[in-house]
Amino acid sequence: MTEVRVGILGLGTVGLGVARILIEQQGLMAKRLGKTLKLVAAADRDLNRDFGLDLSGVTLYDDAADLVKADDVDLVVELIGGYEPARTFVATAIEHGKHVVTANKALVAKHGEELFKLAAEKNVALGFEAAVAGGIPCLKALREGVAANNIESVYAILNGTCNFILTKMENEGADYADVLKEAQELGYAEADPTFDVEGIDTAHKLSILAAMAYGSEIKFDEVYTEGISKIGAADIEAVHELGYRIKLLGIAKPHHGQVEMRVHPTLVPLSSQIAQVSDSYNAVMLSGDFVEHTVYIGRGAGERPTASAVVADIMDIARVFPDGVAYLAPVMGYMADERKPLETLPMADVQSEYYLRIMAQDKPGVIARVTSILADHQISLEGMQQKEHDTGEVVPVIMLTYETTEGNLQAAMSRITALTAVEDEVLILRKESFNT
Amino acid sequence: MTEVRVGILGLGTVGLGVARILIEQQGLMAKRLGKTLKLVAAADRDLNRDFGLDLSGVTLYDDAADLVKADDVDLVVELIGGYEPARTFVATAIEHGKHVVTANKALVAKHGEELFKLAAEKNVALGFEAAVAGGIPCLKALREGVAANNIESVYAILNGTCNFILTKMENEGADYADVLKEAQELGYAEADPTFDVEGIDTAHKLSILAAMAYGSEIKFDEVYTEGISKIGAADIEAVHELGYRIKLLGIAKPHHGQVEMRVHPTLVPLSSQIAQVSDSYNAVMLSGDFVEHTVYIGRGAGERPTASAVVADIMDIARVFPDGVAYLAPVMGYMADERKPLETLPMADVQSEYYLRIMAQDKPGVIARVTSILADHQISLEGMQQKEHDTGEVVPVIMLTYETTEGNLQAAMSRITALTAVEDEVLILRKESFNT
Repeated sequence: MTEVRVGILGLGTVGLGVARILIEQQGLMAKRLGKTLKLVAAADRDLNRDFGLDLSGVTLYDDAADLVKADDVDLVVELIGGYEPARTFVATAIEHGKHVVTANKALVAKHGEELFKLAAEKNVALGFEAAVAGGIPCLKALREGVAANNIESVYAILNGTCNFILTKMENEGADYADVLKEAQELGYAEADPTFDVEGIDTAHKLSILAAMAYGSEIKFDEVYTEGISKIGAADIEAVHELGYRIKLLGIAKPHHGQVEMRVHPTLVPLSSQIAQVSDSYNAVMLSGDFVEHTVYIGRGAGERPTASAVVADIMDIARVFPDGVAYLAPVMGYMADERKPLETLPMADVQSEYYLRIMAQDKPGVIARVTSILADHQISLEGMQQKEHDTGEVVPVIMLTYETTEGNLQAAMSRITALTAVEDEVLILRKESFNT
Repeated sequence: MTEVRVGILGLGTVGLGVARILIEQQGLMAKRLGKTLKLVAAADRDLNRDFGLDLSGVTLYDDAADLVKADDVDLVVELIGGYEPARTFVATAIEHGKHVVTANKALVAKHGEELFKLAAEKNVALGFEAAVAGGIPCLKALREGVAANNIESVYAILNGTCNFILTKMENEGADYADVLKEAQELGYAEADPTFDVEGIDTAHKLSILAAMAYGSEIKFDEVYTEGISKIGAADIEAVHELGYRIKLLGIAKPHHGQVEMRVHPTLVPLSSQIAQVSDSYNAVMLSGDFVEHTVYIGRGAGERPTASAVVADIMDIARVFPDGVAYLAPVMGYMADERKPLETLPMADVQSEYYLRIMAQDKPGVIARVTSILADHQISLEGMQQKEHDTGEVVPVIMLTYETTEGNLQAAMSRITALTAVEDEVLILRKESFNT
């Protein structure tokens, strides 16, 4: 039986998960593939640990730079994470004619284009299903499952930490800082949570999905990105009363040669499928001109789900090993010479509905001034809410708008925040209806 | 550019949808494939119609038997439906060396094994993504996306007509017969709805999923099958009060060399993801030992979603055309010689929780007799409910059981229905928790 010899860079949680599958499910995968996947090598800076796995027969390297050049390795799995040295190791492996599978969304979002070219030159495969939405085979669904469609939109919950925090804030009425602390203690959030909670991780993943959906190049730096750290327990409760839930969404849509890409907390209807996706689950909703709406839900992170996606990529490559790489679906869903560096739609031109929370003094004429400014900028209100209170207080006024452009909204907001009767920043959240 | 020449059998709604994609999205697909998909032929018994599509350049046959032998066709799409003559046409196409894509679940469920062998002999590909859950690429997810996993369970909503009827019954408090009539008038249900509402269509699809999940042969005839025609508006309301919703589920699980397969109305928790799947949407929940739970949701039927899945199969085959069929994932997810004719778990051994609606005379001792019989058969109650009423009436008593075997339950039920104080049949519904 043909053997595919696998080497793993990084024996952290996901690396050990991949090793575990390769060892424990070797028989199952041989039945599915007609080939044997064999773990032959692994690299980690700390080899003096109990890995909880029998790695006898596996060559262990304390320097990944040696593994990526090893003659007896056909396929390298990169699970180090981050930009460097991961980029160098992956590039070196490719230059040595090895296929590569990675779970590294930062690497693909930032250096993907360069690595795709290199892999094409060397006629090797590059897989990164695990980089987007963990265990969910959503890249395969997008690249192959709905490939007959013009993709009309991508809406996705792509960060398990944020979804866990938002779910817990809602269920317990707890504040952001308290839930983050608990998530850190449980190991669900990093000590420095910036990448997760500020939406950067979601933007990495969204930029990959958008490029694959619309045949464009990956432009991570151009994704509009807001995180969840400004959301309070009161906001979650207020939107719930209006029939919505707050999710950190990545959104990508095509616009006649431009691509809209944005990541921000978003009001979604309680009755929508995406609103039901709780805790650390991820969801990807792909809509196409023939398939209509499809939604893919699963664990977005974790040793075992992520390892499942890594090994699915290994199996796809093993299936065409050693001579059939050209028969794989193209890495980004379009033939390389058909991919275009499409422009990113300026945020000012993005259309959305909005939820506004304005802290206003309860004086005659204030609401009239605010609504008149909105009208000046062609912004229509779907609804407005003001709780009972004592006269003269500063009270939150909540407004829901119909669709308008971000440019219009920001122009109106700068005039509204300048009103002396309006205190603090206006909280601006975007709102989606989906029509599903 | 390499051309793949496609012929369609049956220009009904799905056939015209496939033709429309092949014509209108030819450019898009060429960008994704590096090959051209060309609609060259179509067969239909009634060619004297306005197809609403420009079919100039397409050879039209009024006898499908001619198309399947045509020299200028590389790939035949079978959209006639039913067992015969579809089976003969597909077999003839394969014998003439043509690849085949079909949306025909009845055909695959009943004659799949024979057709797989024939296709292997002739070295051609056979695709049927559209046969299960319409537009949702769930077979690809199962065969490739979660292929590193031992599949632990499949739970699926596979029939859009039933899901539409159950959703409407719940939303409107309407009775089954009225909603069915409306669905028929709207074209959502067939004039003879038996295949849909009695669960046979779901059983066709489930038998395919089960065989692919567990490496067994397709055994449609052995699927335990119950439909939705016995469900009343009162049942839907009663289970809703208990925190559940009724869905027609297909369920398949592995049991050490045996496979459990069953289709029946099922109580699912209102908070579960599958409970949110409404109207004609389908959902497939695949759980694996590494990936945990994944859920795939989308349109289960309709011209355009089904056509999307058909063309995804055509694209998979086109990608390896003309010489790379061996590089495709095996048709049923396992190498042919690794597939086993696993036994079906006898229904008496299936474990489930139950919802029982017993029409009992309100006399002293009746409930005690019923619960004592349940206890005799080791059946524990999770809860019991009896509405207020006048003494002496016949009243519905609702009982929820913990997990027990179907054998135990049926033994208890035959004793309970024999009680003179129990009138009518006991309504037995199964209940699932999922733990998601």
